[in-house]
Amino acid sequence: MKDRVVGILGGMGPEATIDLFSSIVTESNAKNDHEHLRIIIDNNPKMPSRQDAILNGGENPGPAMAETARNIAGAGADFIIIGANTAHYFYDYVKNAVDIPVLHIIDEAVLETIKIVDKVKKVGVLATAGAMKTRMYEKSFNKFDIEVVEVPEEIQDLVHNSIFSFKYDGLTNKNEEMMVKAANFLIANGAEALIMGCSEIPLILGNKKLSVEVVNPNDVIARVAVKYAKDIIQVKEIEGRYLSIV
Amino acid sequence: MKDRVVGILGGMGPEATIDLFSSIVTESNAKNDHEHLRIIIDNNPKMPSRQDAILNGGENPGPAMAETARNIAGAGADFIIIGANTAHYFYDYVKNAVDIPVLHIIDEAVLETIKIVDKVKKVGVLATAGAMKTRMYEKSFNKFDIEVVEVPEEIQDLVHNSIFSFKYDGLTNKNEEMMVKAANFLIANGAEALIMGCSEIPLILGNKKLSVEVVNPNDVIARVAVKYAKDIIQVKEIEGRYLSIV
Repeated sequence: MKDRVVGILGGMGPEATIDLFSSIVTESNAKNDHEHLRIIIDNNPKMPSRQDAILNGGENPGPAMAETARNIAGAGADFIIIGANTAHYFYDYVKNAVDIPVLHIIDEAVLETIKIVDKVKKVGVLATAGAMKTRMYEKSFNKFDIEVVEVPEEIQDLVHNSIFSFKYDGLTNKNEEMMVKAANFLIANGAEALIMGCSEIPLILGNKKLSVEVVNPNDVIARVAVKYAKDIIQVKEIEGRYLSIV
Repeated sequence: MKDRVVGILGGMGPEATIDLFSSIVTESNAKNDHEHLRIIIDNNPKMPSRQDAILNGGENPGPAMAETARNIAGAGADFIIIGANTAHYFYDYVKNAVDIPVLHIIDEAVLETIKIVDKVKKVGVLATAGAMKTRMYEKSFNKFDIEVVEVPEEIQDLVHNSIFSFKYDGLTNKNEEMMVKAANFLIANGAEALIMGCSEIPLILGNKKLSVEVVNPNDVIARVAVKYAKDIIQVKEIEGRYLSIV
């Protein structure tokens, strides 16, 4: 069959979209242009802030995300991936707006964790305050009887401040130290794997050696997208969400 | 007014599209997501090879480029940029397919050269054999009474082989040396500026100090796109092509 056309609902923010686009191109392992995938991207940074909606009851970005998803489907995408973790809180708006599959970055990160850590029982999640407040990761992991380490406020502040310091100043000793401290707290509290639930975190932690497996949801969803586009795996709708199946 | 929506006709190849997308995001100088531009990308690497069409009379990619352009316009782009130099040989197919402006990377590179080199009379162009065979750069520069240094076959081979060696092996001393040798030949033959007419060339030449100004058309078109999207400059159709005007 012909390769499926990938759709990326992007712009939240644009840097994360570039990162996801690059990962898909790299994961395609193409020897020439024709082996690469057709990818339709609507990089729409004009949507209401997801953090603001979750943390402060600001405008709901769901309808704008739904409209952007319809635009991508209309342009010929065969399935959609959403290029941001926090935005998955509004997944249902996107899924209900189109009749093509919408992959779920968090569920795919959970499946990956189960695959790489034998009999995993407890994980740690590094993410923005907005993403943590939604308990999205917890709900997805709990479905598989996996616990998520509870994060006290002072540790969550370290993660959040490290991310926003990196966004403005790039990598510094300070924001790296903060993130490593938070990571080590989660490990000390029983995490057998760490989920880097925000695009900036892999850039902050870089190649810092940690004593447990680390899961980068952006890379995971890129690999899943390439395999599904090339018909190596399939996806199935289960309880309202599309999941990859081998 | 609202920012214009940028359309990118991409995938020729995907790496050049990522590069262009990144340049636009960087040039936007945004302090938050909302200051970033909405960008609709159809990264379509499935189109017939431009090199093959130009050099060997292979399948004409014009109709597929036209269809992709219509797709981008249909998804809401207010103007289109084509993310590859050589592909501009098929510019008319794209321009005639849509009723929104299509910027021209080569003409914009010419305008930039005139701006940065006072009373420029002669330039050198580094590009693939396909792009050189079309004499696209020469025609655009000649309109402004600027001459393009004639490139003997052995020098053109150096450029072409350097580009394709870089594509397969990444940067090596060998492909860097070949490109520098070609650049110095053009300078020795009177080039007052060098046009890097292929996305790989800036990556090969890197920060190598050359004795003349160097123009990177990808960066030029990214800057023009951002300024036009933000209504800082306008574009005008002149003799069948859209040109930026201040």
